[in-house]
Amino acid sequence: MNLEVILVELFFLVLLALLAGMLCSLVRIPKLVGEIVVGIAIANLTINGQSIFSLLELSDPQNFAVFQVFAELGVIFLLFTVGLETPFHELRRVGGMATMVAVLGVILPFVTGLVLMLFLNFSTIESLFVAAALVATSVGITARVIKDMGKMETTEARVILAAAVIDDVLGLIILAIVSGMSSGGHLDLLDVAVVAGLAVGFVLIVMFITTLIPRLRQARRKTNTTSKRQRRIEVSLLPLALIVCFGLSALASYLDLAAIVGAFLAGMLFAEFNDLWPGKERFEPINEFLVPFFFLFIGLQVDLGQFSSLDIILLAIAITVLAIITKYVGCSIGARKMGRGSANIVGVGMIPRGEVGIIIASIGLTTGALTNNLFSIVVFMSLATTIIAPSMVTWAFKRKDSAKPTFKSGKAIK
Amino acid sequence: MNLEVILVELFFLVLLALLAGMLCSLVRIPKLVGEIVVGIAIANLTINGQSIFSLLELSDPQNFAVFQVFAELGVIFLLFTVGLETPFHELRRVGGMATMVAVLGVILPFVTGLVLMLFLNFSTIESLFVAAALVATSVGITARVIKDMGKMETTEARVILAAAVIDDVLGLIILAIVSGMSSGGHLDLLDVAVVAGLAVGFVLIVMFITTLIPRLRQARRKTNTTSKRQRRIEVSLLPLALIVCFGLSALASYLDLAAIVGAFLAGMLFAEFNDLWPGKERFEPINEFLVPFFFLFIGLQVDLGQFSSLDIILLAIAITVLAIITKYVGCSIGARKMGRGSANIVGVGMIPRGEVGIIIASIGLTTGALTNNLFSIVVFMSLATTIIAPSMVTWAFKRKDSAKPTFKSGKAIK
Repeated sequence: MNLEVILVELFFLVLLALLAGMLCSLVRIPKLVGEIVVGIAIANLTINGQSIFSLLELSDPQNFAVFQVFAELGVIFLLFTVGLETPFHELRRVGGMATMVAVLGVILPFVTGLVLMLFLNFSTIESLFVAAALVATSVGITARVIKDMGKMETTEARVILAAAVIDDVLGLIILAIVSGMSSGGHLDLLDVAVVAGLAVGFVLIVMFITTLIPRLRQARRKTNTTSKRQRRIEVSLLPLALIVCFGLSALASYLDLAAIVGAFLAGMLFAEFNDLWPGKERFEPINEFLVPFFFLFIGLQVDLGQFSSLDIILLAIAITVLAIITKYVGCSIGARKMGRGSANIVGVGMIPRGEVGIIIASIGLTTGALTNNLFSIVVFMSLATTIIAPSMVTWAFKRKDSAKPTFKSGKAIK
Repeated sequence: MNLEVILVELFFLVLLALLAGMLCSLVRIPKLVGEIVVGIAIANLTINGQSIFSLLELSDPQNFAVFQVFAELGVIFLLFTVGLETPFHELRRVGGMATMVAVLGVILPFVTGLVLMLFLNFSTIESLFVAAALVATSVGITARVIKDMGKMETTEARVILAAAVIDDVLGLIILAIVSGMSSGGHLDLLDVAVVAGLAVGFVLIVMFITTLIPRLRQARRKTNTTSKRQRRIEVSLLPLALIVCFGLSALASYLDLAAIVGAFLAGMLFAEFNDLWPGKERFEPINEFLVPFFFLFIGLQVDLGQFSSLDIILLAIAITVLAIITKYVGCSIGARKMGRGSANIVGVGMIPRGEVGIIIASIGLTTGALTNNLFSIVVFMSLATTIIAPSMVTWAFKRKDSAKPTFKSGKAIK
């Protein structure tokens, strides 16, 4: 391996990702869309008959391995950070509304997706993976869009965020079960039960430990009041977070679950120390460096040649329409008690699949459960739902505001 | 490549580095010493006849390549951060004192080291590399020790830091010349001139661009007062810093200079934006993650079996004693106008070689200029000077304070 080549590759990949991200900011699309498109371009565009992929020497197995690890670490740190934003007590505090929105928004896409795929004669594993990829709302994208609109304090925003979090947990459990089944190769009811048991057991044990932390910290605070020692420990929390993150990721992977399930749980565990340690802030530069490689890598795996067949284009459009409608209907039914305008916002706000759908698809591709065709279709669906979400959320908020001008002006006076 | 194995390796390596770092904090030794010792242990200790190195599957070429890239990025980001702490105007502002300390502290170790090595019948390239490794003071270690003592505001500390910075630049130029020569294979006066010209030219061009930045920024401030646009740009400065860092590192490497020379210059360039962008703070988490891999990797390359011969042990001790005496004498002569007590502090404070000596040695090892023997000896010298420095600096400050009780009490009253 030639370190000079790696540096040149890093230079070009980070440069292209930055330019794509800036372009996305200009047209108000989430950055990850641009990064994926750059990846697709690198894999599919040719200069003088050579693909950019091989011009950058990414076809060298060792170079490719290096960037594969970067991409994997990127998604592990991304999910760790999502976990960091998910303190357990907030999960518990959110009432029936968010849970109902989340559960209906999971069941409807999963069941209809599964039925559609099975009806189209895909295998059970393939159908399960595509259905699982339809499930999870991307907390990051939803939050970023609402934050950019300055609507973070509205009830709708709170329900969307809480529901998206529950969604993520449900999605990860479904992913854990599905990926466990796919690595088994065949479907056996006992296998399914064991995998589901392991997945739920692993998640519940880590969650149980997480619930113990506040009590342990309170007990410790009573016996120990020397703040100096606490500040000393604080300094080395980043390596400790890395260790727990890598440890739980490896453990999850060892239990045939997805490594990111472990990373998410590790993040939730450290969310209990959010008051002591600004974990999100500390992980941000690492994420800013590594996460783009994940989305670049996703793009690298998309073969545009797959979309030459009309069948696949039609299936991609069908899956995308299904993803939008089922999520919107499920979530707005769940939120119907909030009134029509608010239910509309919640339904629209839950549409973007973003990274979570793509992560599930890439696990399917890696384990061999998904063909390149189906992988590309899921990536298309994730991209499309993510690209349309910002404008739809803006529209839904404006629609509600214009329907209730008295409420709006009352707020303005206050 | 198996990502599960990589995660397990990451878990163990970060865990061991953290434990070693904590142990070093307890006995007040710089953390990097512990990290190198962990690396040595992994490479040299065996469990049931198998080295920990192969138990961790680090002997797998692809796994090894991944951690080699981590180590290389660690040292590149480390030098980038050192550059960030070296604004160009501060280099220019420091007067004759720091320059004299630095120049004498570079010439004396380099010349005596070169003479000793040539006298002992080592090749010219080997002698040049060992002499170059004797040159540079580690800014990081010196600064950390003085900071821990609360002496950052003293004149001695300022001279030490400024001289260490000039030292680093001189050391990097010497390294650039030496490594350029070693890649040429043989010594040719024209080659040396070309390499030296390229090295100095590259450094001077980037430095010239760096000096332009404040003027450009001032000119821009006059024509453009919209602070909103500036804040927008600020958000994406980390990727930009990465791009410039990777770009200049690759360019330096392409010019047959060391990649870290480019990284250091990139850091100096961004130091001009220290008021706008907290680069050091932003890079700290990335460094905290990656830098330990560099020191672990250094340890991995140390073969303790080399120290079984008395010749090598004697040479290691001789080089270490030479490193301590020549640096101390050179720097304290340079600082003699400050008075005996202060010159003593400056001389002692410049002793630790830390990472810079090791970096030079590892470049020598990679390019084949240094044998494993000589590499291990330089690492020993760097470790020894680093380990003894903290206690010697403490002693020197106490000695000066006790020699001038009136000054001390005068300060205490103020």
